[in-house]
Amino acid sequence: MSSLGWVGIISIVTAGLTIAIGSIAPAIGEGLALARALGALAQQPDEANTITRTLFVGLAMVESTAIYCFVVSMILIFANPFWNYFVNQAGG
Amino acid sequence: MSSLGWVGIISIVTAGLTIAIGSIAPAIGEGLALARALGALAQQPDEANTITRTLFVGLAMVESTAIYCFVVSMILIFANPFWNYFVNQAGG
Amino acid sequence: MSSLGWVGIISIVTAGLTIAIGSIAPAIGEGLALARALGALAQQPDEANTITRTLFVGLAMVESTAIYCFVVSMILIFANPFWNYFVNQAGG
Amino acid sequence: MSSLGWVGIISIVTAGLTIAIGSIAPAIGEGLALARALGALAQQPDEANTITRTLFVGLAMVESTAIYCFVVSMILIFANPFWNYFVNQAGG
Amino acid sequence: MSSLGWVGIISIVTAGLTIAIGSIAPAIGEGLALARALGALAQQPDEANTITRTLFVGLAMVESTAIYCFVVSMILIFANPFWNYFVNQAGG
Amino acid sequence: MSSLGWVGIISIVTAGLTIAIGSIAPAIGEGLALARALGALAQQPDEANTITRTLFVGLAMVESTAIYCFVVSMILIFANPFWNYFVNQAGG
Amino acid sequence: MSSLGWVGIISIVTAGLTIAIGSIAPAIGEGLALARALGALAQQPDEANTITRTLFVGLAMVESTAIYCFVVSMILIFANPFWNYFVNQAGG
Amino acid sequence: MSSLGWVGIISIVTAGLTIAIGSIAPAIGEGLALARALGALAQQPDEANTITRTLFVGLAMVESTAIYCFVVSMILIFANPFWNYFVNQAGG
Amino acid sequence: MSSLGWVGIISIVTAGLTIAIGSIAPAIGEGLALARALGALAQQPDEANTITRTLFVGLAMVESTAIYCFVVSMILIFANPFWNYFVNQAGG
Amino acid sequence: MSSLGWVGIISIVTAGLTIAIGSIAPAIGEGLALARALGALAQQPDEANTITRTLFVGLAMVESTAIYCFVVSMILIFANPFWNYFVNQAGG
Amino acid sequence: MSSLGWVGIISIVTAGLTIAIGSIAPAIGEGLALARALGALAQQPDEANTITRTLFVGLAMVESTAIYCFVVSMILIFANPFWNYFVNQAGG
Amino acid sequence: MSSLGWVGIISIVTAGLTIAIGSIAPAIGEGLALARALGALAQQPDEANTITRTLFVGLAMVESTAIYCFVVSMILIFANPFWNYFVNQAGG
Amino acid sequence: MSSLGWVGIISIVTAGLTIAIGSIAPAIGEGLALARALGALAQQPDEANTITRTLFVGLAMVESTAIYCFVVSMILIFANPFWNYFVNQAGG
Amino acid sequence: MSSLGWVGIISIVTAGLTIAIGSIAPAIGEGLALARALGALAQQPDEANTITRTLFVGLAMVESTAIYCFVVSMILIFANPFWNYFVNQAGG
Repeated sequence: MSSLGWVGIISIVTAGLTIAIGSIAPAIGEGLALARALGALAQQPDEANTITRTLFVGLAMVESTAIYCFVVSMILIFANPFWNYFVNQAGG
Repeated sequence: MSSLGWVGIISIVTAGLTIAIGSIAPAIGEGLALARALGALAQQPDEANTITRTLFVGLAMVESTAIYCFVVSMILIFANPFWNYFVNQAGG
Repeated sequence: MSSLGWVGIISIVTAGLTIAIGSIAPAIGEGLALARALGALAQQPDEANTITRTLFVGLAMVESTAIYCFVVSMILIFANPFWNYFVNQAGG
Repeated sequence: MSSLGWVGIISIVTAGLTIAIGSIAPAIGEGLALARALGALAQQPDEANTITRTLFVGLAMVESTAIYCFVVSMILIFANPFWNYFVNQAGG
Repeated sequence: MSSLGWVGIISIVTAGLTIAIGSIAPAIGEGLALARALGALAQQPDEANTITRTLFVGLAMVESTAIYCFVVSMILIFANPFWNYFVNQAGG
Repeated sequence: MSSLGWVGIISIVTAGLTIAIGSIAPAIGEGLALARALGALAQQPDEANTITRTLFVGLAMVESTAIYCFVVSMILIFANPFWNYFVNQAGG
Repeated sequence: MSSLGWVGIISIVTAGLTIAIGSIAPAIGEGLALARALGALAQQPDEANTITRTLFVGLAMVESTAIYCFVVSMILIFANPFWNYFVNQAGG
Repeated sequence: MSSLGWVGIISIVTAGLTIAIGSIAPAIGEGLALARALGALAQQPDEANTITRTLFVGLAMVESTAIYCFVVSMILIFANPFWNYFVNQAGG
Repeated sequence: MSSLGWVGIISIVTAGLTIAIGSIAPAIGEGLALARALGALAQQPDEANTITRTLFVGLAMVESTAIYCFVVSMILIFANPFWNYFVNQAGG
Repeated sequence: MSSLGWVGIISIVTAGLTIAIGSIAPAIGEGLALARALGALAQQPDEANTITRTLFVGLAMVESTAIYCFVVSMILIFANPFWNYFVNQAGG
Repeated sequence: MSSLGWVGIISIVTAGLTIAIGSIAPAIGEGLALARALGALAQQPDEANTITRTLFVGLAMVESTAIYCFVVSMILIFANPFWNYFVNQAGG
Repeated sequence: MSSLGWVGIISIVTAGLTIAIGSIAPAIGEGLALARALGALAQQPDEANTITRTLFVGLAMVESTAIYCFVVSMILIFANPFWNYFVNQAGG
Repeated sequence: MSSLGWVGIISIVTAGLTIAIGSIAPAIGEGLALARALGALAQQPDEANTITRTLFVGLAMVESTAIYCFVVSMILIFANPFWNYFVNQAGG
Repeated sequence: MSSLGWVGIISIVTAGLTIAIGSIAPAIGEGLALARALGALAQQPDEANTITRTLFVGLAMVESTAIYCFVVSMILIFANPFWNYFVNQAGG
């Protein structure tokens, strides 16, 4: 198989695994924070505004690590410089 | 086996594993949050509205990481640029 | 073995593993939420309606990740585009 | 060994592993929920009806993920489209 | 080695592993539920009937996942369609 | 090595691993239940009869999953249909 | 190496691993139960008889899973039907 | 395959895995801190300012380890000195 | 290498691993029971006799699983029937 | 492939894994410390200065282990003595 | 390499791993028991004699599993019957 | 590939993994100690001096294990005696 | 490579791994015991003598398992009977 | 590759892994003990002297296991008898 084929295959595998592995921790981290937020709401209903605001800012920060992985995954599928190089080679 | 065959096989494996692995953490995270929400409801029934709203907004955020994986999985099966390239090559 | 054979084999393995791995987390997550719901019922029987309704909406959301996996698994067995391509090739 | 042999072997392995792995989480999830239900019964005997009903509806939902795996396992043994294709090929 | 030999070997391994892995979770789940049931009996002796009845119905449900695995294991040893096909081939 | 040799080897390995892996969970599950039963006896000595009876019925149910594995293990050593087939072939 | 050699080697490995793996869980399960029994004795000295009796009957039940493994291990070393078959073949 | 191809493939795999593995711990660490922050807010609403400020400074510090990984990942895709060397070699 | 050599090597490895793995669980189980016994002594000094007696009888039972492994290990080194067979073959 | 190619590939993989693995523990350790700091702030608001100062000095110490890994990772990419040696060899 | 060489190598590896793995559990078990003993001393100083005596008898029992491994390890290095056999063969 | 190349590659991998693995435990250990120190400060503000001093002396001791790894890692990259030997050989 | 080389390599690997793995558990066990001893000192300062004495006797016992591993490691490096045998062979 | 090269490579890998793995447990054990010491200081400030002294003597004992590993690691890099033997051979 040519280099082009190998680069394609590896890009597919890596793109999939990157987002799959990379979504494990954010989902669990967000679940923990969300669970605790609901407990905090039940415990101190009067602070619902502060709690909810802090929760969503924090969730966005945790989500950012999932988004890093999603970005790398999309780059590997749609804007892969190694793939482009070899396609140019093959077409040259 | 040709490059085309390898790309097909790898796409199948990666699509399956991506959604399989990627659904582990959201399901557990959502389960934890849901479990805690029910506890919060039992503890502070008067705040049922705030709790339920926060819960579902949060669950949607956790679910988003599962959806990233599902999107990548669908792209790999139905809109795979590497597969399309090699099919064009083979048909060219 | 031909490409067709490999694609078939890989589809079988992936379909099985996808649903097997993908059902681990929803089952545990649902079990946790259900366990907590029963505790909430015992603690606050008067809120049985709210608790049960939130429980089943939440369980449906958790179940959705298992369904993503089941959908991918069924696609790989009965509507696999890679298999169809190679069957057409072999029959062409 | 022919493609037919490989497809048979892989179907056997996958069918077995799918139900074996797929039954881990439902059994544990159901065990947790059942354990908590008994605790809830001991704590609030007057709500035995609500608790038992919610328990069995919930258990059915958890069980559903085991049934997805059993369905895929049975399809792979008795209604495997890949096996049928190659048997037709071999007999053609 | 012929296809027949490989199918036989794989059937043996899969049958054994299916029941071995498949019995892990039910045994632990049942142990947890049983342990909690005994605690519930000690806590609320007057509800012994309800607790015991719920326990055994629930245990049967957990046991069902072990039975799925036992059924698949027995099918693979004594009613294996793939083995029958190749025995017929070899004897034909 | 002949098919007969391979089937023999695999039967030995599978028989051993099936009972070895299959005895992990029942032993732990029974240990948990037994530990809790002793705690229940210490807490509620007057219910010793109910507790002990429920314990032993439950232990028998947990033990059943170990027995499934022992049965499969014994079948693979002393009543293995695949081994018998190949012995007949070799002797025929 | 002949089939006879392979069967001997595999029997050695399997016999050792079966008892090694198979003794993990009973030892831990018995340790847990014993630990709890001592706690129960300290908590309710007057029930020492009932507790001790239940403990030893239960330990015997847990021990039984270790004994299944020991039996299979001894069968594989001293009464192995596969080894006997090949020794007869080699000597015939 | 040439050195160039291997360097490309390895760069893809490493870039993906680096960010995937490297985002696990920050996401969990941030989730834990966020969860505790919400509990602290519920417990001491008057200190919301100090708590929130300390939280976000700390989260930034935890996030820094994810950013190290993201930086290495981007370097490997877009500014890889090893890739550049071999491209120059190939083009020289 | 001859069969004799392989049987010797495998016997060494298996003997070592059997006792190494087989001593993990008894040591931990005994440690747990011993730890709890000391707690029980501190809690109920008047029952020191009953506690100590039950402890040592129980420890002997846990130790028995380590002894099974030691027995198999010694059999494999000093009374290995497979080794004896091949030594007789080689010397015959 | 030449030694140069291998050194390049291995440097890429090692650089990525070093920072990926090396950022796991600092992120979790910092998350734990941060979480506890927020709890301490809620518990003893008057000591906010001492707590925050100790926290940031401690975080810097934990961060140092991540920085060791980042340094090694950067050395391997941009100042790798082994790579330089072989580039000189190739260019000599 | 001759059988003698292989037996020597395997003996080295097995001797090392046996004592390495075999010392894990006793060290942890003894640590747990020791930790609890110190707690018991702090809780009930008047029973220091009984506690210390039970502790050291129990530690000796836990230590025995480490000693089994040390014995097997020393046998494999200095009194290995398989090594002696092959040395005699080579020297004969 | 020459011995020189292999030594270089292995040095790179080992240097990276040594510091990566070696920084896991110190970071977690320091995180735990730091977390507890903050709790101690909140609980006993008057002892801030003793606590902080003990903390930093202890952290330095934990950090020492990370520094052992960093030292070995730097030796392997910049003062590797095996690399020097082979470079002298190659240059001799 | 000769037998001598293999024996040397394996001795190096085994010596390193034996002490590396063998120092895991004693360090953790001693840490646990030490941690509890400090708690006991804080709880019962008057018994400092008894606690400290029991601690150090117990630590010596736990340390003994690390010393077994260190002894085996040193034997393998400096007094290895297998290495001596082959060096004599090579020199004879 | 010659024996000399292999011995060099293996020495590098083993030296690195020995200190890397060997520093995991001491760092965690010391972290636990340190964390508990800080709690003890907060709880019983008057015993600061006894606690700190016992802490540092204990830490030195835990550190000793890390030092065993460091010693073996340094021996393998700078005073390796196997390397010296082969260097003498090569130079002889």
